[in-house]
Amino acid sequence: MNDASFDDDLPAHATAEPGEVGLVEPHNFTSNEPFTCDDGHTLPHFTLRYETYGRLSPAGDNAVLICHALSGDHHCAGIHSLSDRKPGWWNNLIGPGKAVDTNHLFVVCANVLGGCQGSTGPLSPDPATGRPYGITFPAVTIRDMVRSQKRLLDHLGVRRLRCALGGSMGGMQALQWAIEYPDFCDKILAMATTAREGAQAIAFNEVGRQAILQDPGWNQGDYPPGGGPRVGLAIARMMAHITYLSDASMDRKFGRREVRAPAAARVGADTLAAPAAAFDVEFEVQSYLRYQGQSFINRFDANTYLYITRAIDRFDLAAAYGGTLEKAFAPVKADTVVVGFTSDWLFPPEQNREIVLALQRAGKNASYAELATDLGHDSFLLESPELYALVRSFLERG
Amino acid sequence: MNDASFDDDLPAHATAEPGEVGLVEPHNFTSNEPFTCDDGHTLPHFTLRYETYGRLSPAGDNAVLICHALSGDHHCAGIHSLSDRKPGWWNNLIGPGKAVDTNHLFVVCANVLGGCQGSTGPLSPDPATGRPYGITFPAVTIRDMVRSQKRLLDHLGVRRLRCALGGSMGGMQALQWAIEYPDFCDKILAMATTAREGAQAIAFNEVGRQAILQDPGWNQGDYPPGGGPRVGLAIARMMAHITYLSDASMDRKFGRREVRAPAAARVGADTLAAPAAAFDVEFEVQSYLRYQGQSFINRFDANTYLYITRAIDRFDLAAAYGGTLEKAFAPVKADTVVVGFTSDWLFPPEQNREIVLALQRAGKNASYAELATDLGHDSFLLESPELYALVRSFLERG
Repeated sequence: MNDASFDDDLPAHATAEPGEVGLVEPHNFTSNEPFTCDDGHTLPHFTLRYETYGRLSPAGDNAVLICHALSGDHHCAGIHSLSDRKPGWWNNLIGPGKAVDTNHLFVVCANVLGGCQGSTGPLSPDPATGRPYGITFPAVTIRDMVRSQKRLLDHLGVRRLRCALGGSMGGMQALQWAIEYPDFCDKILAMATTAREGAQAIAFNEVGRQAILQDPGWNQGDYPPGGGPRVGLAIARMMAHITYLSDASMDRKFGRREVRAPAAARVGADTLAAPAAAFDVEFEVQSYLRYQGQSFINRFDANTYLYITRAIDRFDLAAAYGGTLEKAFAPVKADTVVVGFTSDWLFPPEQNREIVLALQRAGKNASYAELATDLGHDSFLLESPELYALVRSFLERG
Repeated sequence: MNDASFDDDLPAHATAEPGEVGLVEPHNFTSNEPFTCDDGHTLPHFTLRYETYGRLSPAGDNAVLICHALSGDHHCAGIHSLSDRKPGWWNNLIGPGKAVDTNHLFVVCANVLGGCQGSTGPLSPDPATGRPYGITFPAVTIRDMVRSQKRLLDHLGVRRLRCALGGSMGGMQALQWAIEYPDFCDKILAMATTAREGAQAIAFNEVGRQAILQDPGWNQGDYPPGGGPRVGLAIARMMAHITYLSDASMDRKFGRREVRAPAAARVGADTLAAPAAAFDVEFEVQSYLRYQGQSFINRFDANTYLYITRAIDRFDLAAAYGGTLEKAFAPVKADTVVVGFTSDWLFPPEQNREIVLALQRAGKNASYAELATDLGHDSFLLESPELYALVRSFLERG
């Protein structure tokens, strides 16, 4: 894996369509300094795959770090080739002239430590054995993810972080940034997130993990690349996907509409074998979910799913810093905005508001915005002029 | 299977503890008249396992039919032996002096057609082959369940039904009773139900079915009794169980409390093999869910789970009767009460209220009650003096 240096051959927005980041390519950063995780295990070296958009200012003070959620990755804007059907996952927010304006900002996004999109994780070879870590990989935490990102930013020449920005697990990372590196971090923007999950969110993650762990293909985490518990991972994803939407948005999108074409043609399922005709797809929502499960297993690793959901479940700022959120936020210096979405029932508005209330009680500069939407948890990813305006003005203000 | 006759050796509440139904035993009713299901397939005969409490009046007009939900059965009150740890599933509602007062009412509850607790279903031998029906069993509907119950009531000598009463899928059956047998049915009491599910509820059922269908143990529905897709069924149950509770009730019951004892001792899982220590139970809610999954697979059949969830998903009174609920309810003569629970997010209050509004628009005698609770969908099964008072007064009024 090659160390990408920050130099002039990075993609420049000048080559892009107006308003678009355009063609980008991912880079690898390898830290050869040992990295000790929160669980005490030390990685002799690790790699983060990342992308950047825009240019770092000579003072190194215009960087925005985008933190991705459970199933996200480093590719948050632009396209990798002209034939790409879809741009990066937050392309609507990031680009020249957009809310995260790459005409002025240097945007960095890395696949998290423990991930499966090019960063070091359970799929990576353990240098001690030459075989994939599997479940011998350290039990990475949100804090581990953030500390590894710091090494990347140092490597890129970032002197101060203008903003750490993310939704869901990305929001957890943003909060952790403010606590871990108070003198490095000017602003934090966290959305659809929580300072700790409740029992229901843990429960959904647990069912997903069980679907994977109990799949014979999991084999204690030891499986060939591209193999493994594909059915279990698909089940986990199908279920989780429901929690990212809302009752109202699913009703609007699918209602009780029935499928017309034969299910096999729609699902194209190699892993989710076509079931007996008696239990074939009847409703569009079934077909949609099967497609979600199928496409996920073609791009995601089951062990990473286990590791990241555990990191999310264990994330508990109050418990980690002396018992209260105020204590956790004591070191924070960043200006913080937290955004909740009214229809988010995975990390509901109250959990987002709670973060801001605790920051305010701790004497910090924090404000809460609640956006009315019926699109559920995934609202933070979807088109929203209100969100764009909020992000833009927060990033621009002095 | 023996035909139980309605005679003096039925258990009488006189033998019970004060206020309790006491010792009861299940009976089998076999209808030897062919039964044609909604899908056109004909069962040459079928059996319903049922229980009764209280005594039928000489006029045969004091019967209350209890309709059970997805995972319920015929054993809704009393105990089967003095060593039983738990009474029937609605024992808090049914008994001498209770809301459904067996001093005055004759209570009947049967395992549904397609069930796995003694009634004819996919586990039963197909008379044509001698082997279990499996997925050659007819695609039973809520209406099939109701029509088979009618044969049981006729057999028992019931001339008029005082009330059909049920929650969730039991409420669907109650509504279907009012439509199918308007001249037989005096009252309907449906709780935590819907005249048709939305996309989210279908989606959750679909994920559960996929967990079963994709389990290699399912084998196109052909598996030995007690075998089959036990892991898939456990996953389906764990997930569904979350939808029966609420965020608030799970937080109150479990919060983020961690388990202290070794997980293996708590789970006692023969099917859900203890996973690698790295992904062992950490939170009490995980342990609870694994227990729910484990206990379910010891009492439930996976094919029945497929059949019944499909019947629930397909239930759509408007679509089945000319396109509107008013048309569906046109024949109804029964007085109807529908009860919604504020925290039920599976079949939310609005879906319950919608039923009553349609009945009223159709000129029927119907009223809606909404009970404030934070216990979720399962509220209808839980202790509630308000619910008891409501049921009692509805059953007693003229």
